[in-house]
Amino acid sequence: MGSGVRTTAGILKQLVLSAAAVAVFAGPARAEDGYDLWLRYKPIESAAQRQSRSFATQIAGQTETPTLRAAAAELSRGLAGMLGTAPTVSGSVTSDGAVLLGTPTSSSEIAALKLGLDRVGDEGYVLRSTTVNGRRATVVAARSDVGVLYGAFHLLRLFQTRASLDNLDVVESPRVQFRILNHWDNLDGTVERGYSGASLWDWHKLPDYLDPRYTDYARANASLGINATVLTNVNANATALTAPYLDKAAALAGVLRPYGIRVFLTARFSAPIEIGGLKTADPLDPAVAAWWKTKVAEIYRHIPDFGGFLVKANSEGQPGPQDYGRSHADGANMLADALAPHRGVVMWRAFVYSHEEPDDRAKQAYSEFVPLDGKFRDNVLLQVKNGAIDFQPREPFHPLFGAMPKTPLMMEFQITKEYLGFATHLVYLAPMYRETLDADTWRKGKGSTVEKVVDGSLHGYRRTGIAGVANIGADRNWSGSHFDQANWYAFGRLAWNPSLSSEAIAEEWTRMTFSNEPAVVEPVVQMMLRSREAAVDYMTPLGLHHLMGRGHHYGPGPWVEGGPRADWTSVYYHRADARGIGFDRTATGSNAIAQYAPEVAAEFGDLKRCPEKFLLWFHHVPWDYRVQSRRTLWDELVVTYTRGVQSVGDMRKTWSTLTPYVDSGRHAQVAAFLTIQEKEAQWWRDASIAYFKTFSKRPLPKGFAEPAHSLDYYKALEFPHAPGHH
Amino acid sequence: MGSGVRTTAGILKQLVLSAAAVAVFAGPARAEDGYDLWLRYKPIESAAQRQSRSFATQIAGQTETPTLRAAAAELSRGLAGMLGTAPTVSGSVTSDGAVLLGTPTSSSEIAALKLGLDRVGDEGYVLRSTTVNGRRATVVAARSDVGVLYGAFHLLRLFQTRASLDNLDVVESPRVQFRILNHWDNLDGTVERGYSGASLWDWHKLPDYLDPRYTDYARANASLGINATVLTNVNANATALTAPYLDKAAALAGVLRPYGIRVFLTARFSAPIEIGGLKTADPLDPAVAAWWKTKVAEIYRHIPDFGGFLVKANSEGQPGPQDYGRSHADGANMLADALAPHRGVVMWRAFVYSHEEPDDRAKQAYSEFVPLDGKFRDNVLLQVKNGAIDFQPREPFHPLFGAMPKTPLMMEFQITKEYLGFATHLVYLAPMYRETLDADTWRKGKGSTVEKVVDGSLHGYRRTGIAGVANIGADRNWSGSHFDQANWYAFGRLAWNPSLSSEAIAEEWTRMTFSNEPAVVEPVVQMMLRSREAAVDYMTPLGLHHLMGRGHHYGPGPWVEGGPRADWTSVYYHRADARGIGFDRTATGSNAIAQYAPEVAAEFGDLKRCPEKFLLWFHHVPWDYRVQSRRTLWDELVVTYTRGVQSVGDMRKTWSTLTPYVDSGRHAQVAAFLTIQEKEAQWWRDASIAYFKTFSKRPLPKGFAEPAHSLDYYKALEFPHAPGHH
Repeated sequence: MGSGVRTTAGILKQLVLSAAAVAVFAGPARAEDGYDLWLRYKPIESAAQRQSRSFATQIAGQTETPTLRAAAAELSRGLAGMLGTAPTVSGSVTSDGAVLLGTPTSSSEIAALKLGLDRVGDEGYVLRSTTVNGRRATVVAARSDVGVLYGAFHLLRLFQTRASLDNLDVVESPRVQFRILNHWDNLDGTVERGYSGASLWDWHKLPDYLDPRYTDYARANASLGINATVLTNVNANATALTAPYLDKAAALAGVLRPYGIRVFLTARFSAPIEIGGLKTADPLDPAVAAWWKTKVAEIYRHIPDFGGFLVKANSEGQPGPQDYGRSHADGANMLADALAPHRGVVMWRAFVYSHEEPDDRAKQAYSEFVPLDGKFRDNVLLQVKNGAIDFQPREPFHPLFGAMPKTPLMMEFQITKEYLGFATHLVYLAPMYRETLDADTWRKGKGSTVEKVVDGSLHGYRRTGIAGVANIGADRNWSGSHFDQANWYAFGRLAWNPSLSSEAIAEEWTRMTFSNEPAVVEPVVQMMLRSREAAVDYMTPLGLHHLMGRGHHYGPGPWVEGGPRADWTSVYYHRADARGIGFDRTATGSNAIAQYAPEVAAEFGDLKRCPEKFLLWFHHVPWDYRVQSRRTLWDELVVTYTRGVQSVGDMRKTWSTLTPYVDSGRHAQVAAFLTIQEKEAQWWRDASIAYFKTFSKRPLPKGFAEPAHSLDYYKALEFPHAPGHH
Repeated sequence: MGSGVRTTAGILKQLVLSAAAVAVFAGPARAEDGYDLWLRYKPIESAAQRQSRSFATQIAGQTETPTLRAAAAELSRGLAGMLGTAPTVSGSVTSDGAVLLGTPTSSSEIAALKLGLDRVGDEGYVLRSTTVNGRRATVVAARSDVGVLYGAFHLLRLFQTRASLDNLDVVESPRVQFRILNHWDNLDGTVERGYSGASLWDWHKLPDYLDPRYTDYARANASLGINATVLTNVNANATALTAPYLDKAAALAGVLRPYGIRVFLTARFSAPIEIGGLKTADPLDPAVAAWWKTKVAEIYRHIPDFGGFLVKANSEGQPGPQDYGRSHADGANMLADALAPHRGVVMWRAFVYSHEEPDDRAKQAYSEFVPLDGKFRDNVLLQVKNGAIDFQPREPFHPLFGAMPKTPLMMEFQITKEYLGFATHLVYLAPMYRETLDADTWRKGKGSTVEKVVDGSLHGYRRTGIAGVANIGADRNWSGSHFDQANWYAFGRLAWNPSLSSEAIAEEWTRMTFSNEPAVVEPVVQMMLRSREAAVDYMTPLGLHHLMGRGHHYGPGPWVEGGPRADWTSVYYHRADARGIGFDRTATGSNAIAQYAPEVAAEFGDLKRCPEKFLLWFHHVPWDYRVQSRRTLWDELVVTYTRGVQSVGDMRKTWSTLTPYVDSGRHAQVAAFLTIQEKEAQWWRDASIAYFKTFSKRPLPKGFAEPAHSLDYYKALEFPHAPGHH
C-alpha cells in the first residue's frame, strides 16, 4: 500500500480501487492451462511473502543491452507475480534488499565487488549475498550479459521453490557448450513425431509477424540455459535455405538472440542440386563446395551469429556423400570448411544404417564412424543417439560413446515421446537420460561414464554438446501435456549440468509447475520417478525393443513383419520362436557386444552377469530360463507387463488425491490422460502377451488375467491418422 | 460486499482478503489474446454498472436439464464478469431485478405469464420486462430449452453492447432451419483452406479426452444460434464413418448437444467400397443401398440426434453417382432413404463441374441441377455457393437461386478467406454475404431476392439452411486473426436473421469484441464496412475473377495458364488480349446470362446497364472503353487497383490511432497484419498491372506509380508451403 495514505477512509478507498483494478485486469474466470510452463510466478503463500519481499525491494543496475533488459524484465515480472508488488528499479543499489544485476562492464558496483568471475566462463554467473553501498543486496553477476540472464532465472527459481535466500554464494557455469533443441518441424507446419499440435513456427507469416510465443519460447529456454535451436527437421527441405526462408529464420533469430539462443538449420545434402541448379552434390566437386561457401556466406548476411548445420545424411533415404562414393567425413568436412570462416559448426548425425542391412542394425553406426575418428574438421561434432537403435524406452548406451576420442561426440536425446506413449502417457524422461549418462564405457578404465564423454572431460574434447529432439508445438501447453513440460525442463537442466539427479530436477519442476505444498511435491515426484520404469514394463520389458506399430509407432505391434526392410519390423528385434525370445548379440549371434570395451562386453555378453533390464537386448533366452526372481522368463514377462499396467493405475489413483491442490483445468487434463495411459498400458500388455504366447505356448502364471481380446483383434487395429507421422 | 460486515476494520479486512483472492486468481499479467471471442464479459464502466446491476440481482428458475444449466451458467458467468459480482441463484423470483429463465415446462412462473410462446417456434424466445411474484423481473422464456439458451445469450448481448434493459419486449425466432458450419477438417489434423492453425478436433485423443475448447466452441456457436456442424472435410475420407471414428464423433456430439448443436458428417460416396468391402458404390445397386442403411443405423446408435450427411460428389475428383451413369438425384436419394427413418437429411453440394469442360464453368451447376428439380427426396437440400465460380472476392449471385422452386436450396458461404487474403487481410465479409442475399433473382417478379429463396419464403421450401465454411482452428484466437472472428460472428447472425444489416452486425461485434467507446466503435465499424470493397479493388476489380496463384491460392497469379484443365487457370477467366479484357458471358459468348431470369439477363447482358462491379464478369471490354468515370477501362483498372492499396493504408492509419483504446496484445497483432495486408495489396496491384500491361500496351495514368518490380519477378515467386493447401 502507498505510504502516503493516512486515514482509514483513504485506505479503504485505495483498497477498493486496487481491488477494482485487479478485477478489471483479470476478466472472467480462466483456468490455468499450462501456457506459463514453470515460469508461473504465482503469489508466494502470505506467511512467507514478507520474508521473500525483504530480498527483492529493488532491481538495481544499468540494463541497457537487450539481454540485460530481458533479465531485468524477467526479474520484475517474476517478483511482481510472486510478491504482489513489483520491486522499484534503480541504476544503483539504494535500499536494503536490492537485487543488483550486471557485468563488470555494465556496473561499476559489480566491478568493485571482485567476484572472481573468471571462474564462470562465458555463460556462467555468480549469485552472492553481500553489501553494496552499505545496503544489503543480492548480486547476480556474470562476465557476459547472457550469464546475467541465466543468473536472474536461477534467482527466480530460488524464490519459486522457496529455497533460502540467505547467504547466497552460488557459482554456476554450464558443463556443456552446445545445449541445443532439435525441432523436427516441417515448413508446411507439420511436425515429424510431434504430439503437441502444429509447428510453433508460423513460416507463412514470418518474417512480418512475430508471434509473442516466440519470445515466451526464448524465455523458457533461457530459464534452463538452452542456448541453441535447430529450427527445421533433420529430414530436411532445401527450401529452408532459399532467400525467403532465410529472411524468416533471421526474424526468428532476432527474437531469440537477446535470450542467448543461436539459430541452426538443417542442411539437405542435395540442396546444391535442388535449389542451386547444379548437377551433383558430390562433396569433393569444387563447384559444390563453392556453392555451399556462397550459400553459407548468404546465411551469415541474414543471421550474423548463425550457429551452423545439423545434417542427417545417408540415413533413411536422405541424400549424402555416400551417394557419390564419399565418406561421411568428406561430406561433413566440406560443410565445415564453408562454415569455419564464420565460426559455424556442423553437427553430423551418426544415426545411419545401410539400405542393404548387411549386419545387425545396432552395429552399423559404430562400424561406419569409428574408422573415421580423427578425420573430421575441428568444427564438426558427431551427434549420437543415446542408444544404438532408435530412442526405445530402454536401450543400453550407444557403443560409439568412448570409442571416438578424437571426435567430439554430442548426445542426442529425444524429448518428444515417439516411442513412449506420445503426449498422453506420463513418462518422466530424466531417469532415462540419467541411465545413459551414468553408463560406464570403461574406455579409460572404471568411471569412464558417458557423462564424461559428453561433457568432454574424458577425451578432452574442445567442443561439447547435448541435443534434444523437441516436444514443443502450438498446443496451448506447449508440449501436448502438462507432464511433458517436465521433459523439456529436465533436458535443459541436464544439458547445463549433466550430473543433476532426476529427483532434484523433478522436485524443482514440480514446485514451480504445480505447488510447493509437500502434499503435492512428494507424491508427484514419486510418480515421476517411477513412471519411466512403468512404461518400459508395459511396452518393452527385459530388454525387448522396437515392438511398436508400423510407421506411426502408436501402440503395440510385436507381430510387424515383412515390408521394405527387415530392420523396420518387430520380428527382426524380438526373434521369438518356440525355444525362446531375444536378439543374440553375443559372439554366438551378431556379436554387437564386441563394439563395447572388454569389461562391458564381458558383462553384457554373459547371460548371468547381463543386467536383466538388457537381457533380451543381448541374448536369445529360453522361455523356461530362470531369471533372478526364480520365475521362468515367460512368467517374468507376464508379471512385468502386468506390473507396468498396475503402476499406471497407481499413478492415476495418486493423482486423484491431488484434486484439492491442483487447479481444476490442469488436474482434469492430467486425470484424463492417465485414464488413457492406463487403457493403453493394458492394450500393450494384452496384445504383447497374446502375441508372444503363440511362441511360448505356456499358460499365464496363476492369477494373471488373459488378454481381453484375441490376437487377431489387436492385429486388426489400424491408426491411419496417428499424429506425428507424415 | 457481504451485508454482515459492520465495522470499518471488518470492511477493511474483507476488502484485503478479496483483493488478495483476486490477485491470487489473476496471476501474472496476461494480455488479451482473442480466446474469449465476443464473449469477453469485461466489467461494465463503473458509471453504468449500478444501473446494469439493477437488472441482474438474481438468476431465477429451475435449471435441471443440461441446456438450461448451460443457459444459467452462461448468465452467471457473463453477469459476474460484467457486474463484478455474480447474481444470486434461486428457484423462483424473490427479488427485484431478477432474471427468470425457463420454459412453461420448467417454470410455473413462466407458464403463468402467458407469453404467447407459440409465436417463437422450436428455437425462438421472448425477452420480456415484467413483474413476477410482485418483483421486477426480466423473463427469458421459450418453448424449448435451447430457445432459453439463445435468449440468455441475447440478454447478455444487451448488457455487453450497453443497450437499454428497460421495457424489453423482444420476440425472436430464426428464419432459417439449418444454421450450419462446414469444417473442411481432415482426420490427420490439417484443414483444407484453413488459416488458423491445425484442426480444432483432436481426433487422436478422442473419445477419451474432451478438450475444454470444444465446450467454448459450442458456447460461441450457441451465442449466435448456429445449430449444426459438419465435422469433416467435403473432400471426404471414408475412415470417418468407421466405428472408432463414430465413437470419436459421438464424444464431440455429447459436448455440443447441450448447446443445441447437431453433428453432421461428410459421406464419401465410395465408402461402400473403401470400408464396406463392396465392389461398387452404384446408388441403384441394392447391396450399396443396404450397406448405407446399415451404416446409417450404426451412426444413429452412436449419435441419436445425428443430423445427416454433407456430400461433395462428382466434383474435383470426388467419387459420385455419375461414376455409374446415375444422376445426382439418384445418389442423393439413396442416402436420403437411409437417413429418413432417423429424420436425418442430406445436404448435397451443387458445386460440380465437368472433367471435360464442355462449357463455361459458371454454367455447369445450373445445367446439371435444374433438370433435376422435383426429383429429390423430401429430406434432401441442395447446397449452393453464393456465386457460380468459387467464393471469389466478388461474384454475381448463383443462377440456381430462384431456378429450383421444388428443391430446397441452401446457401453455402465461405467464412475462411481462401481467396480473400487468408488470415492476415482485414476483410469483413458481411457486405459480401449481404450483396448475395439482397440480389434480386426476379424469378417471381421484382423483390424475388436470394434471401427469400434461402429463407424458404419465395418457394415455400419446407426445409431451409445456410452453411458457412468455417474459419475456426486451433489458433489461440480461433480464426487466425482477431477480425476474422467477425466473419464467424456475421455468418452466424445472418444465418439466424438474413435481413440484418452489415453495419448493425459490425457494431454489435465491435462493442463486444473491443470496446463500447465511440472512439473505437465508429472507426472500427467504418474500417470493417469498407474492407471488402478494398480487397476487391486490389485483387479482382471490375468483375475480374479467379486470378490467384495456382493451387495454394496465395497472392496474384493472373498469368497462370496450362496445367491439367483450362478452368483452373487465370487466363481462362480474364481473357485479356490486345483488344481488351473480360469473359463474354452474353449471347455472343458463353451466354451464361441466359441462366438468369430475363430481367436480370437483360441487365447483366447489356454493356451499358451491367453494374460496373460485374463488368468483366459478363463482358469482354475494349481497353479504351469509357466507364462511368469517363476514364478508359485501362485507366480505371489502374485507378481501382491503386485505390484498393490506399484503402488498406487508410485502415492501417486508423488502427494506429486506437492504441489508447485497445489492449496491447490484440492491437499489436492487428497492426502487424494490416502492415502485411498493405504490402500484399501493393503486390496484387503491381503484379496485376505489370501483367495486364503486356496486353493493354498503354501507359499508366499520370501520377500512378509503375509496378515496383518486373513481371518476371512476380511470376518467379513461389509459395510451396502456403497454408491450407494439402
